[in-house]
Amino acid sequence: MSRPTLAERLERLGTETAFTVSLAAAEWGAKGHQIYPFHLGDLDLATPANVVAAMDRAVADGKTGYCPAAGIPQLREALADDIGARRGLTYSPAQVVAQPGGKAVITKFIQAVMNPGDEVLYPSPGYPIYESQIDYFGGDAKAYRYVPTPTGFAIDLDQFRALVTPKTRAIIYNDLQNPIGAESSSAEREAIAQIAIDNDLVVLSDEAYFEMRYSGMSVSIASLPGMQERTVILYTFSKKFAMTGWRLGAAVGPQAIADAIAKLNTNDESCTTHFVQYAGVEAIQGDPHAADYILAVLLQRRDAAVEAIASIEGMSVATPEATFYLFPDVTEAMAITGSADVAAFAERALHATGVSFCTRRHFGRPQPGETRQYIRFAYSGLGADDIREGLGRLGQWIGSFR
Amino acid sequence: MSRPTLAERLERLGTETAFTVSLAAAEWGAKGHQIYPFHLGDLDLATPANVVAAMDRAVADGKTGYCPAAGIPQLREALADDIGARRGLTYSPAQVVAQPGGKAVITKFIQAVMNPGDEVLYPSPGYPIYESQIDYFGGDAKAYRYVPTPTGFAIDLDQFRALVTPKTRAIIYNDLQNPIGAESSSAEREAIAQIAIDNDLVVLSDEAYFEMRYSGMSVSIASLPGMQERTVILYTFSKKFAMTGWRLGAAVGPQAIADAIAKLNTNDESCTTHFVQYAGVEAIQGDPHAADYILAVLLQRRDAAVEAIASIEGMSVATPEATFYLFPDVTEAMAITGSADVAAFAERALHATGVSFCTRRHFGRPQPGETRQYIRFAYSGLGADDIREGLGRLGQWIGSFR
Repeated sequence: MSRPTLAERLERLGTETAFTVSLAAAEWGAKGHQIYPFHLGDLDLATPANVVAAMDRAVADGKTGYCPAAGIPQLREALADDIGARRGLTYSPAQVVAQPGGKAVITKFIQAVMNPGDEVLYPSPGYPIYESQIDYFGGDAKAYRYVPTPTGFAIDLDQFRALVTPKTRAIIYNDLQNPIGAESSSAEREAIAQIAIDNDLVVLSDEAYFEMRYSGMSVSIASLPGMQERTVILYTFSKKFAMTGWRLGAAVGPQAIADAIAKLNTNDESCTTHFVQYAGVEAIQGDPHAADYILAVLLQRRDAAVEAIASIEGMSVATPEATFYLFPDVTEAMAITGSADVAAFAERALHATGVSFCTRRHFGRPQPGETRQYIRFAYSGLGADDIREGLGRLGQWIGSFR
Repeated sequence: MSRPTLAERLERLGTETAFTVSLAAAEWGAKGHQIYPFHLGDLDLATPANVVAAMDRAVADGKTGYCPAAGIPQLREALADDIGARRGLTYSPAQVVAQPGGKAVITKFIQAVMNPGDEVLYPSPGYPIYESQIDYFGGDAKAYRYVPTPTGFAIDLDQFRALVTPKTRAIIYNDLQNPIGAESSSAEREAIAQIAIDNDLVVLSDEAYFEMRYSGMSVSIASLPGMQERTVILYTFSKKFAMTGWRLGAAVGPQAIADAIAKLNTNDESCTTHFVQYAGVEAIQGDPHAADYILAVLLQRRDAAVEAIASIEGMSVATPEATFYLFPDVTEAMAITGSADVAAFAERALHATGVSFCTRRHFGRPQPGETRQYIRFAYSGLGADDIREGLGRLGQWIGSFR
């Protein structure tokens, strides 16, 4: 056996190619170049001290052994109350299943509801693991698209409706969208819900950014009439509490699906790290000021980034009120710099300016008819001054081609 | 949609029914009864203080964001050195992939090497997740058996060889075995290796208890000639460092499989909890006295349990030098108490004495020709005095039927 043969299913497994951007940036930085890391949806901010202290107390209290596969009762109760209250819904703790991060909800939702051959609608551009997991478990991944509007992006509802067939089983919906930063209008959200109801579809509502917003109020598709019973909410502690590396999230939904997901937990990881769950309880129930502070910092960064992009020739972006992503149209900037390919544009920009970012290519297979070029800036991982400095360099570089 | 339909694959998903024993014990305890918890393979001992301190330092150093899917380089390097040195092998850090606990290696190994329809040999009695994951991913689970010997148990090699067919793809091997506490002789281990080589099989070597032993030295099947290139080692921090609830383990094996498992990490959970990995580095590289202390405590408990069982009428067990499990033959004890069914025997024992334990039924489907009855005592979760007291009560209860 020189090299063991791998199982055929792995040929269908996708990945997050954004990590290769991290690697390219790290390699360029290791050569002594200043890097402006806009590529990763991570935060450079500290987890609130009260959350850390709650973990330390749990460890001191001996919460270092196994705990229930679905999570400690205190966390499930806290999440049922908090998630329900913010959405105007009632959930029982039994409907809440703790996870090692929000991402784990994607694979477990797919495994719990999708049979091989079922069609699942998902956004592209969108978080690439949706597509990967539908493909991997033998589903038929049907991408729906967003179209630019004067204030951002909207789902192409005509195309969306045309994708639904008798074989459609589920919709993956990521209102407050990564990578594009869009948010559905009420009409759009209601239209998606109506399609789900009319066709008896199950919905994964990825609400990772539900509380990452600077104005207004988020609305969950689960709160629309007839939707709670068919919707699984992906919840995560990662963004709101700067806990990306803690790996704590939850699946919240209909009891039968919650039970199936808990059984997958037993098989896949036994339980989510025990003492980290106590930190989660404190994050939800403790002093909210630290989470407010994180949002205030992100708002300054958003404003710095939007303002800087506005002064870059050939680049345009709306101002999203949620997420920490910007998805500028760079079609003209690419033309100015003589870049025919968006990946080449990103690589040239990195080497010329140190600004590192992902492109539309990192967020699912391209769809037919895509004529505009986009990149994604995550402004969560560097301060407002660095944002201004980095994007200033990027603008100068593009301008230098004139 | 009154109740969403679940995917058909879930019908093939097994679970750890040992958790229902935990529940039954907890319910009986909640009624005011004293419980002696022999049912769960967890430790009631504290994680070493230096390990906790290393985690605290990592959090203070800001290791709260995402880290590489395959693990932080420091941990992969430490594990490559430590796992290699203890087995007389050389591993590169790239062959080590961090996991949220040892259990995660089981599903990822199966996903990485087994196609639907492939046959996989696994132990029954054995850890129930082996069988569950082979079934779940469409494999054909072929159970091999152990037979009692004067000093414990041995694999029935004739039956094992008869199970191998051209469709056999992999062997799951758990030397230092849960639940039976057996350890292969050199000849037995070599015979399994030879079967793997002769039939070009991949091996998952579950080495969760490799360092949980009171005398002698463990030998990894990966260290036998021709085996490293076809063996994935399941490593865990859970037992040696009393870290079951921390969820930290690793898969170590051939590069192609390690890479596939890392790609599954990216899909399933992004990464293992970042700061917990620094605790793992300290566990391996720091002061070894705390781990020695854990073993010394377990040895006292083993001796207390073996001695107590020896005085129980109708119950017999050998003295394993590894793991923290005892798997006594209770056929006569059941007859004495008039219990025809081992599950009923366990329930009656719980209610009569407070002693809670799993039975052979919790460890995989029974095999044809099983005539003797067995139960499993885990002595890791209660002190030597409680072990003596609980097993004393059990012995009195059985004796009361005379």
